[in-house]
Amino acid sequence: MNAGDRIRVDRAAQTYEGVVLPSSTREHLVVKLDGGYNVGIDREDADVEVLETDVHQIEDAQTDDEPAGRTEVEFDEDLPTVALISTGGTIASTVDYRTGAVTARFDAEDVLRAVPDLAGRANYRGRVVANILSENMTPDVWRDLAEAIQTEIEDGADGVVVMHGTDTMQYSAAAMAFMLDTPVPIVFTGSQRSADRPSSDNVMNAVCAVEAAKADCAEVLICMHENESDDRCALHRGTRARKNHTSRRDAFETVGRAPLGVVDYDAETVSFRRDHESRGDSELGITAELNPDVELVKFAPGMDEAVLSACADASGIVIEGTGLGHVNTDLIPRIEALVQDGTEVVMASGCIEGRVCDRVYDTGRDLLAAGVIEAEDTLPGTAYVKLMWALANREDVEATMRESLAGEYTKQSRPWA
Amino acid sequence: MNAGDRIRVDRAAQTYEGVVLPSSTREHLVVKLDGGYNVGIDREDADVEVLETDVHQIEDAQTDDEPAGRTEVEFDEDLPTVALISTGGTIASTVDYRTGAVTARFDAEDVLRAVPDLAGRANYRGRVVANILSENMTPDVWRDLAEAIQTEIEDGADGVVVMHGTDTMQYSAAAMAFMLDTPVPIVFTGSQRSADRPSSDNVMNAVCAVEAAKADCAEVLICMHENESDDRCALHRGTRARKNHTSRRDAFETVGRAPLGVVDYDAETVSFRRDHESRGDSELGITAELNPDVELVKFAPGMDEAVLSACADASGIVIEGTGLGHVNTDLIPRIEALVQDGTEVVMASGCIEGRVCDRVYDTGRDLLAAGVIEAEDTLPGTAYVKLMWALANREDVEATMRESLAGEYTKQSRPWA
Repeated sequence: MNAGDRIRVDRAAQTYEGVVLPSSTREHLVVKLDGGYNVGIDREDADVEVLETDVHQIEDAQTDDEPAGRTEVEFDEDLPTVALISTGGTIASTVDYRTGAVTARFDAEDVLRAVPDLAGRANYRGRVVANILSENMTPDVWRDLAEAIQTEIEDGADGVVVMHGTDTMQYSAAAMAFMLDTPVPIVFTGSQRSADRPSSDNVMNAVCAVEAAKADCAEVLICMHENESDDRCALHRGTRARKNHTSRRDAFETVGRAPLGVVDYDAETVSFRRDHESRGDSELGITAELNPDVELVKFAPGMDEAVLSACADASGIVIEGTGLGHVNTDLIPRIEALVQDGTEVVMASGCIEGRVCDRVYDTGRDLLAAGVIEAEDTLPGTAYVKLMWALANREDVEATMRESLAGEYTKQSRPWA
Repeated sequence: MNAGDRIRVDRAAQTYEGVVLPSSTREHLVVKLDGGYNVGIDREDADVEVLETDVHQIEDAQTDDEPAGRTEVEFDEDLPTVALISTGGTIASTVDYRTGAVTARFDAEDVLRAVPDLAGRANYRGRVVANILSENMTPDVWRDLAEAIQTEIEDGADGVVVMHGTDTMQYSAAAMAFMLDTPVPIVFTGSQRSADRPSSDNVMNAVCAVEAAKADCAEVLICMHENESDDRCALHRGTRARKNHTSRRDAFETVGRAPLGVVDYDAETVSFRRDHESRGDSELGITAELNPDVELVKFAPGMDEAVLSACADASGIVIEGTGLGHVNTDLIPRIEALVQDGTEVVMASGCIEGRVCDRVYDTGRDLLAAGVIEAEDTLPGTAYVKLMWALANREDVEATMRESLAGEYTKQSRPWA
């Protein structure tokens, strides 16, 4: 039995009939039932009969030679148009399997079949940029994603929803925030529980992301469950978010403050708690080049200098240091040598909240004297993406790291605040 | 003007007279006033007159040839004895400067002069194990610290308070938890604000740590402000704590649950919220060997394989992976080669909360097949210290990493819980 086969499964006095999906595991079958829903079935004690092999071919997204890969159906002039862009991950698997096949495109019909609750909220266009596990996300895909978003907005999308695996979503959202000037919302969403689980969060997250994509905002946002209930999604600024729990549905948090906004699922309202860029404030612009030759290095007591030496040829390094942004003083000469050899070294904090403040203690002042750039309150992962962007697009990397491009950095109002 | 000089400072219509302390910075003088308190004075617009140079010599702790370096004064048979061990850091600077001099020992008189609120709570013994910035903590100092604690308990201490810089406190506390079997509390405390600042937390933290050291508990704890008020300290299990804010006084959190206990500052009561080891449950024991040849490596999208290759000769690596404990699948062959060559590779999660669960997705199963050990819900920093300990003391490292030695690991009750 393989993905694409049509099967009948008998288990625990229940019978299921449908097509085996590639997301099946050794322990669980995932079957797309004829009604359109996916179901996960424990393989133990399951009695499986293959009815027909290879019912649905896996199409190759790369060799699909139809242009752009978009269709629009049932266009409603009274509704805004939302572009759905899929990169892979749990939530995308809900939408971009067309009865088992992986395609380079999908249309409103596919969207509404997968998530009927999306009906009547917008006109939809679908585009697959990648179909990868989020741990395999790369700077190259970020560039493809930025260009796809640019095209969708140029073609008139009133908002963009990006479906993305949750594990590296914060990095991709930060990348889009640096690469794009946007006049409309760009809303990342994902799912912590797959569609075949009763506690799945994919429908509510998708619905709330579409509502956010229609809102009066023009930022890169992450839209995920705000709490363990099914009543609200939080909207996190893409440069300030962190996945802080491996599996909870409300895994994402805005570091150090409340989320920027919230989507009420039942009321279908979007509200913002703080200032934000408004729809149309900015012209569409793209600066998609990155220098991917940057490493993110974590300091811990006993760290071997060899880890830093391994980065000797890197264009940039972000160090996740101790609380205030320190490392063992024995490492400072090595860091100074890296800076002298042309590597930009940025110091962030391994604490979740707060800011590095290297002017208070001797170690910090020695790091500054060695040429290290303070990330201040920029999150380490965001500083890592920003450094890739700054190295490719700005002459003065230090000045760029010390200004706010997309809300990732705030000026210090008072020392030690 | 140098540390140890006696000076008079006039600034903003105030006059201070005292001895310059080594903790002075370019921006601030720190002066021990004749009354015993330290004061921080902005150098700007300050008018300084040196009255006498080199009033207090900096003694060298290493060349102090008096044995053991302990005195006991004013012994009260009705009070328990608490050993105060100093490793350096902000809080220690309050206690172990004897009018400007750094010494290898201090006695009850020094303690009470520095923190008068400690009077009447215990008999005190003081011992300086190190006087280092906490970013300079090393596995060697952990061994010295464990041996000092062992000696204090053998000599009858009813509890131990370790004064430690906050930046690496969680690593040192975890190290003590693995190295020592203890019949009494071992309580780490520190200070986020130095004694010369009005918002200093050092007195309350020291008092609460002493109260915790007298309590019916026999674990390694971290005792720090529970909130921004001055009413309670939280007691965090040493293997489950994390400094989550760079500068707030309540920077420490027990990851994933409420702290183990709480000390009410005014009521002078210690209460525990969950099961814990009771006083006397265990015999005193020490296993202080570590294999320090372990690295903690953080994964981020775009990570270069060279960082892993730099660890090729390490005995062990802890990888801080994505949410569920993944890395880019392109890195898995490199990891497999490391394991084949004898490096123990442990996978932890870069999320703060939750657990790695490598049996759910293909990437995780490939990592397990490559020989990676899941850290489950062990924190990355704790797994790093534990791996150093397991490599030095246990035949079966994998089995050791997958059992709870000091509350650092909990069995999974249900998948994805």
